[in-house]
Amino acid sequence: MTIGFEVLAADGMARTGRLTTAHGVIETPTFMPVGTAATVKAMTAEGVAATGARIVLGNTYHLMLRPGAERIAALGGLHKFMNWPHAILTDSGGFQVMSLASLRTISEEGVAFRSHLDGSKHLLSPERSVEIQRLLGADFTMAFDECTPFPAERAQVEASMELSMRWAERSRAAFTERPGHGIFGIVQGGVHPDLRRRSAERLVGIGFDGYAIGGLAIGEGQETTFAMIEATVPYLPTDRPRYLMGVGKPADLVGAVKRGVDMFDCVLPTRSGRTGQAWTRQGSLNLRNARHAEDPAPLDPECRCPACTGHSRAYLHHLTKAGEILASMLLTAHNLTYYTDLMRDLRTAITEGQVAQFELPYPA
Amino acid sequence: MTIGFEVLAADGMARTGRLTTAHGVIETPTFMPVGTAATVKAMTAEGVAATGARIVLGNTYHLMLRPGAERIAALGGLHKFMNWPHAILTDSGGFQVMSLASLRTISEEGVAFRSHLDGSKHLLSPERSVEIQRLLGADFTMAFDECTPFPAERAQVEASMELSMRWAERSRAAFTERPGHGIFGIVQGGVHPDLRRRSAERLVGIGFDGYAIGGLAIGEGQETTFAMIEATVPYLPTDRPRYLMGVGKPADLVGAVKRGVDMFDCVLPTRSGRTGQAWTRQGSLNLRNARHAEDPAPLDPECRCPACTGHSRAYLHHLTKAGEILASMLLTAHNLTYYTDLMRDLRTAITEGQVAQFELPYPA
Repeated sequence: MTIGFEVLAADGMARTGRLTTAHGVIETPTFMPVGTAATVKAMTAEGVAATGARIVLGNTYHLMLRPGAERIAALGGLHKFMNWPHAILTDSGGFQVMSLASLRTISEEGVAFRSHLDGSKHLLSPERSVEIQRLLGADFTMAFDECTPFPAERAQVEASMELSMRWAERSRAAFTERPGHGIFGIVQGGVHPDLRRRSAERLVGIGFDGYAIGGLAIGEGQETTFAMIEATVPYLPTDRPRYLMGVGKPADLVGAVKRGVDMFDCVLPTRSGRTGQAWTRQGSLNLRNARHAEDPAPLDPECRCPACTGHSRAYLHHLTKAGEILASMLLTAHNLTYYTDLMRDLRTAITEGQVAQFELPYPA
Repeated sequence: MTIGFEVLAADGMARTGRLTTAHGVIETPTFMPVGTAATVKAMTAEGVAATGARIVLGNTYHLMLRPGAERIAALGGLHKFMNWPHAILTDSGGFQVMSLASLRTISEEGVAFRSHLDGSKHLLSPERSVEIQRLLGADFTMAFDECTPFPAERAQVEASMELSMRWAERSRAAFTERPGHGIFGIVQGGVHPDLRRRSAERLVGIGFDGYAIGGLAIGEGQETTFAMIEATVPYLPTDRPRYLMGVGKPADLVGAVKRGVDMFDCVLPTRSGRTGQAWTRQGSLNLRNARHAEDPAPLDPECRCPACTGHSRAYLHHLTKAGEILASMLLTAHNLTYYTDLMRDLRTAITEGQVAQFELPYPA
């Protein structure tokens, strides 16, 4: 039943492991490309797999509004719809409903809102969120939570966390156990270590297949992000995966892996790819910069992606300046490959007991 | 030396043949995807080759302005820049300089103009156009011509054609012979059969490696397009390739092949792909239409492209409605595959002596 998780090696707090899902095996630590609207932007499903990714994230909020969860279910589920044979994690919609929807009303029941697309009325509750994720066919379902704004008063953070914990309990109850499928609870509590601990303990008391750390990397700064991971991980079971939501830059990932995180998602590599930014072993660079205009060198000579093996920086500069779709395609493929290879290198470092020495060769 | 051309079979006026270039062999009739700014829009070079295409078109006007012909030459030429190992035909810039540039001044020397990108001043002459095409490394160079507007008075058409013939002579003289490379003359003369004949005879007198028919499909209607092909082809040598520029819809291609044309280019399959239009064996359809929203069927069950083998019409509809880049990627790949397969089917029909019976299974 549920998601299998086996820790293969540990090195300090860091560990490398293997997730077994209804749609294949995933080595951890792992990075999940974001496929908001049933597509990782500017990538074919084959292209995503070629980066080495074996799991992508889908957004419940976007998919429930367009094309609709029931429609995707009628068409055979999100895997078939996207032609993605590997694993899928869906978020709960809690984050986007707060950032994108209009006329939101939060109650104990859930969040009533109007679609940002056509103004239609909807309700997201723990039960409906879990139902949508089941209709989509997600291997990993996320509990419905409220993403607490930052900064916020402690009392507000605490009340929000407590609401999320009640919603977590309802999400767990609404989840239908199926082989290879699981549901994760989400630790909240803002930047308050005691609230983070209380949230973690509440979730462990309910019992989930894995545990996410939410509500971070929203302005509190990397040092605080790391401190909150350290305030949370000791209260999570070692035999279940840990997922840091919405993070982050390569240096954030390295620091979080060293602190015991197994899974990540972030729009950064895909969104950056569409604006001409590339992450490389020499640091990040902006291809729009004129200094690349005549440079015959590849973006990253150590990279195995189609942008680096087939093209010069001069070509990528040209495509970016000309606004060509191929710029987004190649730079997204590159950035995802960079992230995937970074995770692979971290797994190797953990296996070899060298993760403490693992550093990016450029400033964060 | 030059471009090799061997007619393998003829069927009425239609023929199938083989072009041999510095960058491989191309079976004719052939369709050339348009790669304006050193990229077929929304396609990787590998993706273009996967459609079956073995030659693409590059635009001299766009490339001379950005990134610049000298820069591409310094980077190893257009093939290397694009990572396209197969053949490239470049146009002369004559058409785009008239449609895109501002403050144009036409003289016997050539066309002085300002860039539509940054207002910088440039001159395109027969000599400069041929030089740019050499710097790009084009396998097929086109003579610099004036594209006569339509409609136009006969006297204007005649004067324009005569100017293009003088420019053709200068283009031929400026061309440097290299093995596997050739230069084509362009027949002009508007919708006047006698001017078309005179233009063809002038070009044959100069002697080119192939002959294009220009200035058609700009509003004169398919019947007139076909009539002008019929008025031109008898005056062109049978042992040299014939290229109908900027055409067209599938039915236009079928009609032109039956009248002896070997090569085509058109933005239609690529541009249509970016606006949700698909060409299929059942006719053309617009994926934006709501009737596709729940359709689990592929776009074209007989098609071998990634869009048709991996996805439903419902998914393509969703991507198109959501404005996802992947919609452009998949529909462009599909449309180019459709065009390439249509050319393949026409070659087969010619080989089997069945081209007269070849009809598209839907209205033009």
